[in-house]
Amino acid sequence: MKKLLLISNSILYGQGYLEHCKSDIRNFLKGIKEILFIPYALKDYDAYAKTVNDYFSTIDISVKGIHTTDPQTSIVEASSLFIGGGNTFRLLNELYKLDIIEAIRERVINGMPYIGSSAGVNVACPTIKTTNDMPIVYPPSFNGLNLIPFQINPHYIDADPRSTHQGETREQRLKEFCEENNQSVIGLREGAWFWIENERTTLKGKTGAKLFKQDGTTYEFKEGDIVEI
Amino acid sequence: MKKLLLISNSILYGQGYLEHCKSDIRNFLKGIKEILFIPYALKDYDAYAKTVNDYFSTIDISVKGIHTTDPQTSIVEASSLFIGGGNTFRLLNELYKLDIIEAIRERVINGMPYIGSSAGVNVACPTIKTTNDMPIVYPPSFNGLNLIPFQINPHYIDADPRSTHQGETREQRLKEFCEENNQSVIGLREGAWFWIENERTTLKGKTGAKLFKQDGTTYEFKEGDIVEI
Repeated sequence: MKKLLLISNSILYGQGYLEHCKSDIRNFLKGIKEILFIPYALKDYDAYAKTVNDYFSTIDISVKGIHTTDPQTSIVEASSLFIGGGNTFRLLNELYKLDIIEAIRERVINGMPYIGSSAGVNVACPTIKTTNDMPIVYPPSFNGLNLIPFQINPHYIDADPRSTHQGETREQRLKEFCEENNQSVIGLREGAWFWIENERTTLKGKTGAKLFKQDGTTYEFKEGDIVEI
Repeated sequence: MKKLLLISNSILYGQGYLEHCKSDIRNFLKGIKEILFIPYALKDYDAYAKTVNDYFSTIDISVKGIHTTDPQTSIVEASSLFIGGGNTFRLLNELYKLDIIEAIRERVINGMPYIGSSAGVNVACPTIKTTNDMPIVYPPSFNGLNLIPFQINPHYIDADPRSTHQGETREQRLKEFCEENNQSVIGLREGAWFWIENERTTLKGKTGAKLFKQDGTTYEFKEGDIVEI
């Protein structure tokens, strides 16, 4: 009975940190008093933990930064887990270095609520092959926590028809992914998130998501849709 | 006596394939009749080779697609080499799979002219850690051809002050690279390229390049500048 909240972006334009999905975060964690936080996607763990602590204190949840603890023990004892955004390669590399991939996976598969934002969404996927991040470190594998059976591209952005930039659009990049991999990807726009519970994936937020299928076609999901791939 | 032409982008807005740097490509290859082309960054090698062949035929240079030959032999016999753009991970993975990294490096270090565009610039660097591409395949290493002593970020783009998108800016991504690596990076804007010859790196094109140094400072290079890092 997995329970995941997978959020495209931590900051939505013009709003505070995780403000745009705050009522869902509150509902998702109902009855929970403490969350274990994994800050490895950013360089300064303490500063990052402070930001996260300030946020969760407003909904009466205390935050334990995994970097201040014995990681393996903390994961076994945690009542919920939050992995925040930053660089996905740096984050995944650290999860491998500390050898906590399997421990996290086992807890989440068995029901520990998991919140991931941005890089925390990428590592929840089968692989990190649909991240937007720069490969600043070489992890021992691109395999992620594999908590869901499809790929998500967070911060999904539609091509800007006015742009003169010639780098690949996000759509082109995701189609390249489909050329090399036998998996579907959902581009999750900023302002959207997935609530996964009781084997059901519901799309939340007003901005929607775009499915890229193996056969080259696409499909638009909108707020409230149950996502089946 | 290395000789490299490293081009940020193959297509500049409003122009044809490699049109914006055509007179430099012609001068760079003066006296050369044939170029060996590596198409591995795109999926359809034949279609890619046709595009490249159509282009080079206008400056009287014939193109040999490496995928139609024995790669090792072709590299030994080539009088010049062109690696085109596409997905850097797919390209580098194929170079490893065919075991031609060292062969290319040896030829270029000993003077065979090398032209790289976009992904062909990324693989010329010490590593591909400053690519913008999506990591759609997992290469056995991020180490590149190591033909130059610094990193280049092709398709460099300045942050758009009007943007509401919250994904990292290119500048933020390159600063993250500097947090994790002991190397400087040059963001090479679309429309700019490096001509490297006689141990001298000259910046060409009107759009310029931005150096990101380890100490967090930046420096703007402009057209005609000799780049020393």
